[in-house]
Amino acid sequence: MVTIKDIAQRAGVAKSTVSRYLNGGSVSQKTRAKLDEIVKETGYTPNTFAQSLKAKHTKMIGMIIPRLDSYSANEVLASIDASLRDQQYQLLITNANQSIEREIENIYTLAKQKVAGIILMATIITEAHRKAIAEVDIPVLLLGQVGEGLHTISHQEYEAGFTMGSYAKNLGHKKYLYLSVFKEDVAVGQLRAQGVLDALKEGADRTVEVIETSFSFQEAYEQALVILPSTQATFIICATDNIAMAVLKAAHTLDMSIPQQFSLAGFGGYATTSIVTPSITTVKYPYKELGKVAVEQILELVSGKPMKEHIALPNRLEIRESTVPF
Amino acid sequence: MVTIKDIAQRAGVAKSTVSRYLNGGSVSQKTRAKLDEIVKETGYTPNTFAQSLKAKHTKMIGMIIPRLDSYSANEVLASIDASLRDQQYQLLITNANQSIEREIENIYTLAKQKVAGIILMATIITEAHRKAIAEVDIPVLLLGQVGEGLHTISHQEYEAGFTMGSYAKNLGHKKYLYLSVFKEDVAVGQLRAQGVLDALKEGADRTVEVIETSFSFQEAYEQALVILPSTQATFIICATDNIAMAVLKAAHTLDMSIPQQFSLAGFGGYATTSIVTPSITTVKYPYKELGKVAVEQILELVSGKPMKEHIALPNRLEIRESTVPF
Repeated sequence: MVTIKDIAQRAGVAKSTVSRYLNGGSVSQKTRAKLDEIVKETGYTPNTFAQSLKAKHTKMIGMIIPRLDSYSANEVLASIDASLRDQQYQLLITNANQSIEREIENIYTLAKQKVAGIILMATIITEAHRKAIAEVDIPVLLLGQVGEGLHTISHQEYEAGFTMGSYAKNLGHKKYLYLSVFKEDVAVGQLRAQGVLDALKEGADRTVEVIETSFSFQEAYEQALVILPSTQATFIICATDNIAMAVLKAAHTLDMSIPQQFSLAGFGGYATTSIVTPSITTVKYPYKELGKVAVEQILELVSGKPMKEHIALPNRLEIRESTVPF
Repeated sequence: MVTIKDIAQRAGVAKSTVSRYLNGGSVSQKTRAKLDEIVKETGYTPNTFAQSLKAKHTKMIGMIIPRLDSYSANEVLASIDASLRDQQYQLLITNANQSIEREIENIYTLAKQKVAGIILMATIITEAHRKAIAEVDIPVLLLGQVGEGLHTISHQEYEAGFTMGSYAKNLGHKKYLYLSVFKEDVAVGQLRAQGVLDALKEGADRTVEVIETSFSFQEAYEQALVILPSTQATFIICATDNIAMAVLKAAHTLDMSIPQQFSLAGFGGYATTSIVTPSITTVKYPYKELGKVAVEQILELVSGKPMKEHIALPNRLEIRESTVPF
């Protein structure tokens, strides 16, 4: 039988390099190509499966995500996946497609699959959520939204909104437009929005119009096509970078110039916001950190240790080309 | 106990609307908000879980994806998730993080979780893959890569490359650069590349340089920063849109103009390629269609019906601002 040692010898690299390669860690492209070749030739089979059959409990964590096309959810997921891997845990991911029923259903499904714990990125927390969490009797950790009495790791949403609002106010604009999302989403639809509005509220010569739009790029884009031609705002703050990107695209379509005609800002710190022209001012959220802390906490819960009920991570403003003084 | 009928009556909408809402289908924002409220108030719990406990077999399909930050994988996933949902199946997703060991391990893990079938988006097919697929004894469908003797749905990769190469040739450029990925990836690293090179090969006055880069945006960006200042190429074709976006960012960083200094093209049809400036010429792949066909075929296999060994889906060129005649 071929072992990791055999492969290391054939490739002329250290055993730890092979191990890193097999675990999806960082390996040079040249070494990776060589190891791919050797694994292919030797038909090497890792014995993790054999190990997991021997183990008494499944070392698995279940995850419920709201959408498959969310940049932020994917960043958090990648970080959770890597951290769990470091702890020899596997991750089973299920999509709820922004449906409450599917969120609840997935809690039960994952419990039935005998995962050791569940990380839930919910949009809202209903009584049905609480009932399911109580019934499955395994640790459930909420991510992103705060559920009173439930274990939660979230972002400092109000502070993020307040930081952005204060920055915009200091640029001296008078007419603001805030593109929000539905209010049932407490983190984004309420806290983030309230932070923005509180920062902008003082001063009689300032007006802030709030319009509700959607997390969906396409829906936000179509709405922006209608809103932009008639808005008086010289500063548009969007509840997410995804919405800001949709507004940018709509401005392109309508031949409007940013930041000449209006300043534009978002929240999240999505990679794409730094590639587009103009690059978009945003509040950068620590998605990787959120994933890391989530794994630490769920594994504490799984091992029966207590955790603080609520942890909220800070974020920071990133000023880019899309925002200018009035 | 609260039923769908009760909720429909309270909301003053049809039962089918409530059902669509609960299943994550299309519902107006106003109706959704109202239903969110009622579900919250009534503590309604869907009974899908109860149904699935009664069912004899788990109606679950397992999925193995190569990366969590892949636009194309996420597009396919979303489509698979929706199509399976229509058939009352659930989807369990696992990430292999471009590690062969994790791909193999996930095949066994999902089988142990008693999924009815597995859809595998592999980068390469090794003997270890074949061994695992034979051992688990449930239907496994390959997506994206062709594995001889295995059920496969892929894109017409060679044709995509040839289409792009022919288009570039007809614009009259003389010096081309093709940014490829590692050759072990048969679909992208071999077939797609070969199509491009075959289309460009005739004619003594044309040169094509090929440089290997990475699927990773950050790695491709850093490599582009080194390559761009010294390249003679007036047309750069990238193996993926992600790489093309990295080249675009590097050009921004280096203050180089596209398409004035060189034309740029990619493959995939990622949404972002139409938002950036200049928008990027690409070959659009039918990711949603791929997901739909994959679900049709895996469910045929699960029910014991035969499928054609290999299905390859066509794609189409989308000409945008980033490419101009020489």
